[in-house]
Amino acid sequence: MRNDDFIAGCAELAMLLEVSATPKPGNVDRTHDFQDVTYEHFLASAVGISPVFKKAASTRFQIGDLIFDAVNASTQWQKAGNCHFGATVLLIPLCVAAGKSSKLSQLKQKVVGVVKNTTSADAVQFYKSFHCVDVRVQERHFLDVKDPKSLQTILDQDLTLYKIMQLSSPNDTLAREWVEGFPRTFHGSQLMQQYFQSGLSVNDSIVQLFLKLLGEFPDTLIAKKWGMEVAREVSTTARGVMRDGDVQDFDRDLVQRKINPGTTADLVIASLFVTLLGGLRY
Amino acid sequence: MRNDDFIAGCAELAMLLEVSATPKPGNVDRTHDFQDVTYEHFLASAVGISPVFKKAASTRFQIGDLIFDAVNASTQWQKAGNCHFGATVLLIPLCVAAGKSSKLSQLKQKVVGVVKNTTSADAVQFYKSFHCVDVRVQERHFLDVKDPKSLQTILDQDLTLYKIMQLSSPNDTLAREWVEGFPRTFHGSQLMQQYFQSGLSVNDSIVQLFLKLLGEFPDTLIAKKWGMEVAREVSTTARGVMRDGDVQDFDRDLVQRKINPGTTADLVIASLFVTLLGGLRY
Repeated sequence: MRNDDFIAGCAELAMLLEVSATPKPGNVDRTHDFQDVTYEHFLASAVGISPVFKKAASTRFQIGDLIFDAVNASTQWQKAGNCHFGATVLLIPLCVAAGKSSKLSQLKQKVVGVVKNTTSADAVQFYKSFHCVDVRVQERHFLDVKDPKSLQTILDQDLTLYKIMQLSSPNDTLAREWVEGFPRTFHGSQLMQQYFQSGLSVNDSIVQLFLKLLGEFPDTLIAKKWGMEVAREVSTTARGVMRDGDVQDFDRDLVQRKINPGTTADLVIASLFVTLLGGLRY
Repeated sequence: MRNDDFIAGCAELAMLLEVSATPKPGNVDRTHDFQDVTYEHFLASAVGISPVFKKAASTRFQIGDLIFDAVNASTQWQKAGNCHFGATVLLIPLCVAAGKSSKLSQLKQKVVGVVKNTTSADAVQFYKSFHCVDVRVQERHFLDVKDPKSLQTILDQDLTLYKIMQLSSPNDTLAREWVEGFPRTFHGSQLMQQYFQSGLSVNDSIVQLFLKLLGEFPDTLIAKKWGMEVAREVSTTARGVMRDGDVQDFDRDLVQRKINPGTTADLVIASLFVTLLGGLRY
């Protein structure tokens, strides 16, 4: 298997394993759909984006163009919109970094270089990709993604995509991953290896990983939809469930309240990518 | 999206949708595993084989080599062996045919040409690929796949892979697809379109397709494991379930008796491939 095929496969399989893991409280999984997006939409989205990951691994394309391409590729076979926007924001630079060195030990250093080297052209493409998806964003950001003038501001001020992520990072865990060198991603990957090596199945390892990351990091998507207080409450509950709770009950409660920890799912996907790249076979 | 990416994606998504459809009586689906092979093994196998479908769509490689490659690629991330051997035997020539013409109306004619043009070198590679998988085969075939002398016989008698399929066709539905021009595959694709257009979900359309094909064609894998009488009995039950039965009961019964209609799953995958290639979006 070619190296770019392997990298793209790790990214795609990470998406498939994440959405399949059950019970994964509050999110679409193989046992429950949302009204407007189903499990099968996520499967099709992952298959659609895979060639873009392969392009990323070839290291010949720009991050902004790749994120833009991924948004369109996601809907090749499904009509529920881009179900993997957040995951893509993490996976694209990780795939580029993996393409630059086959040594896993260098991945962290490489991905830091990749995101720091982004340009204002990447930022423009990133902003344009928002027009193709319905992504929940901060409303008071001085660069409103719904305002076409933002594109001119980006170019006038030479704001790189890395700089945009710095601006967003106080309220966005994914942006913080970019700025801080993907610490939650690599931390999650270590956890995944531990859970799997302890004898848990792939499914149960991912469920544990999800609960653990949700407990540690209040979910950005929940915070944007329901406020930080709710996000913190959900994290507290997740920690309790890991100690001695019922994950099925937790799932039912979140689904009923329409609270979905989508950013945690993105972190889980990025962590699984690193774990698969590191040689996980099951 | 490039055409070979699109073709490979259709093949891979067909595999993912088939294994995900539930309840799919007797086979691994998203709600039940077998002891030695789980749902996650099928996901990883599909992702692993995808680059081989892309090679097939480029039309620059030999069918036998591609089938051999697919066997190895299947286990890139999973250790349960090749879960998709039968599906690959159908999908590889279909992908090659799709790569030769973008017109769906020409697919049938093209795939007939592809399988008829196979050589004894393809047959040798096909036989070699059996050594990498644990596939149930007829024991009294004069070309025993477990006997290395068979490879010499193939070359001495210039037996093409198409000829081998002709020899196997009386007792093997997949071989019959090759010899007869994939009639069940195209029939299944028309059924899938009808079910989906009638308003059924993707999942329920696939379950209906599975039951319908199982009812029409006694399953080869069941016949090889349990005898043709059992295979016919299962087909009769499938027809009854479609009229007024309980598909969950049927599933439980087959799982308990370890009767798995694996060849029907292969036909469903091939049918889904043609449907996706024809433009199915959901």
